[in-house]
Amino acid sequence: MTENELREIVSRIRPADEGAAAAARARQSSLAKPPRSLGKLEDISVKLAGISGRVNNRIKKTLVMVFAADNGVTREGVAVTPKEVTLRQAVNMTKHKTGMSALARSFGDSVRVYDVGIDAPARRELINAKIRRGTASILRGPAMTRPEALGALEAGFNAAMDAKRDGFDAVGIGEMGIGNTTTSAAVLCALTGCAASTATGRGSGLSDEGLMRKTRVVEEAVRLNAPDGNDPIDVISKVGGLDIAAMTGAYLGCAAARVPAVADGFISIVAALCAYRLCPAVRDHVFLSHASEEPGYALAAKELGLSPWLLLDMRLGEGSGCPLGFRIMQAACAVMNDMATFDEASIDDGYLVELDEVEGFNYEK
Amino acid sequence: MTENELREIVSRIRPADEGAAAAARARQSSLAKPPRSLGKLEDISVKLAGISGRVNNRIKKTLVMVFAADNGVTREGVAVTPKEVTLRQAVNMTKHKTGMSALARSFGDSVRVYDVGIDAPARRELINAKIRRGTASILRGPAMTRPEALGALEAGFNAAMDAKRDGFDAVGIGEMGIGNTTTSAAVLCALTGCAASTATGRGSGLSDEGLMRKTRVVEEAVRLNAPDGNDPIDVISKVGGLDIAAMTGAYLGCAAARVPAVADGFISIVAALCAYRLCPAVRDHVFLSHASEEPGYALAAKELGLSPWLLLDMRLGEGSGCPLGFRIMQAACAVMNDMATFDEASIDDGYLVELDEVEGFNYEK
Repeated sequence: MTENELREIVSRIRPADEGAAAAARARQSSLAKPPRSLGKLEDISVKLAGISGRVNNRIKKTLVMVFAADNGVTREGVAVTPKEVTLRQAVNMTKHKTGMSALARSFGDSVRVYDVGIDAPARRELINAKIRRGTASILRGPAMTRPEALGALEAGFNAAMDAKRDGFDAVGIGEMGIGNTTTSAAVLCALTGCAASTATGRGSGLSDEGLMRKTRVVEEAVRLNAPDGNDPIDVISKVGGLDIAAMTGAYLGCAAARVPAVADGFISIVAALCAYRLCPAVRDHVFLSHASEEPGYALAAKELGLSPWLLLDMRLGEGSGCPLGFRIMQAACAVMNDMATFDEASIDDGYLVELDEVEGFNYEK
Repeated sequence: MTENELREIVSRIRPADEGAAAAARARQSSLAKPPRSLGKLEDISVKLAGISGRVNNRIKKTLVMVFAADNGVTREGVAVTPKEVTLRQAVNMTKHKTGMSALARSFGDSVRVYDVGIDAPARRELINAKIRRGTASILRGPAMTRPEALGALEAGFNAAMDAKRDGFDAVGIGEMGIGNTTTSAAVLCALTGCAASTATGRGSGLSDEGLMRKTRVVEEAVRLNAPDGNDPIDVISKVGGLDIAAMTGAYLGCAAARVPAVADGFISIVAALCAYRLCPAVRDHVFLSHASEEPGYALAAKELGLSPWLLLDMRLGEGSGCPLGFRIMQAACAVMNDMATFDEASIDDGYLVELDEVEGFNYEK
């Protein structure tokens, strides 16, 4: 993808259909319940209407897309897990043996795993979109070149287009890349100017000493590479990773194709923030699933102006929050599509009084 | 149910099977993920093991039980909704047209609606377990007699026994009873000694003035009836309701039958707290679904020592949090039953190194 192609894509992404969203809000007000008593389920149904342009929506065919890549920063001792696990777990996902993929299978969600930069030869179990075999360490220079970042972004964008073509009603955006809580923290620092300590967490389980080392790596990588916080592609290519780049492209692609995109945890929400900074209308197509335990998650959610639905103390990644996120979206659709209105809720058998016959009745009071 | 029968039931309820829970914890540690990275999903799987006595569990057949009753306190102007809505919505639940029942149908959960005290003749759509037609106003005296409270408790207990007999793997406990956020607030005050303002919220949408009136009603009802906070049956009969009494019995019944019980919002968790105060082992069988917007919810959760999973800003009641709660329990089962262990996660094709060959690899570090 060239710079011009990216600009063209961004310029074509439209925000929510405000007319459909308003009609959805009006329908919610007519349903037989106290106003706003279904909280975020109501908001989700309105947001889905803004995406599709229709009041009534269904989330039936669902997909978790995983973008797998290795991150050169692992050589700096920032992860307790060896980088070989990136390939191993990417392959295991296709066998439904990992956390996310076990959840996906149990609920009937599809899984597609894209190799956008695993440091190993291509494997038949994975969709090959490899840009290079892993990135360079962000502590020693830029992670990759700008064209490489744009190439990974394009891979993610195309994955979203494929999901649209194949009729998926919602897409979860996950990752597999040992070291990517470090790169995500660096990207978040570069985008927001926050302190490294605000953005950096224990990942898969660092000790206090490991967390201090990781925080110093994040701080030093941002200082050394001096990415331009107003240019998300510059940020991703200098202190990010191929996984984050591809996920950013996937969020753009979902917004372009008007497919609801569900974020997972810390890495996934940082990529959503990159896409939002490239194109604010992306936010109208993004849903948060669970609140990650990683400390930078809350800042990224605040920057996006979105809030998560699930408080499960999870920090596995992979897209593991997405299968339950899909269920919550299905619940929102069921409310919108199947609940009775106040008119329909009357029991017309001559016994019950109608609500409007009850003096002073007004849910809106 | 007599006092002796209640004592007998309470004495027979056993706490979690610690052996099975320990085996479940050990199995979670062997799964290919950073320790504790699936957070509450791991805790749920361990808790289910403690209930069933088996490491592997399935939540397939699910039921939301709704206990409907009228509350005499509605005459004090504590609710924006007329009491006729209790019957109306109880009937509509059986037609899957209300919030909870639309969700239940979309996910395949069964619904049973028990009339334990609606102020109207019995209706064929509802399971008739009516104790009396509504309670008295707690602002003028006790809601009901102690034998009536025990009768409603028995109805709920028997409903749980029926759910067990019919093979349900988990049961959600909901309610329909206009005025029952007022009685629940009074029960919570009596059980914990908290201020009326801590326990009292806007229910279906009270104005500031309405909230002040409701808070005064709660405070005055507790002062007037002076329930014994160490005797939950005294509390329920004096300032509670038939709905709360039946739900308390349902929690006891679930614990006695070792069926996982899922609480919904404020009224449901107050009933769970009543059951816990009658028998501490009940807690080992109770799961919280969503955090209700009602202010007393957080206090009740703290008293129970449990935490909810969903942050959806819901305050509808009915059991509307239970269908999504069931999905989270199913997710917990999928993790436990379907994820690979570290041993199984190896890809034995001669290409990948085994994790234990990677120097210094240890997720536990």
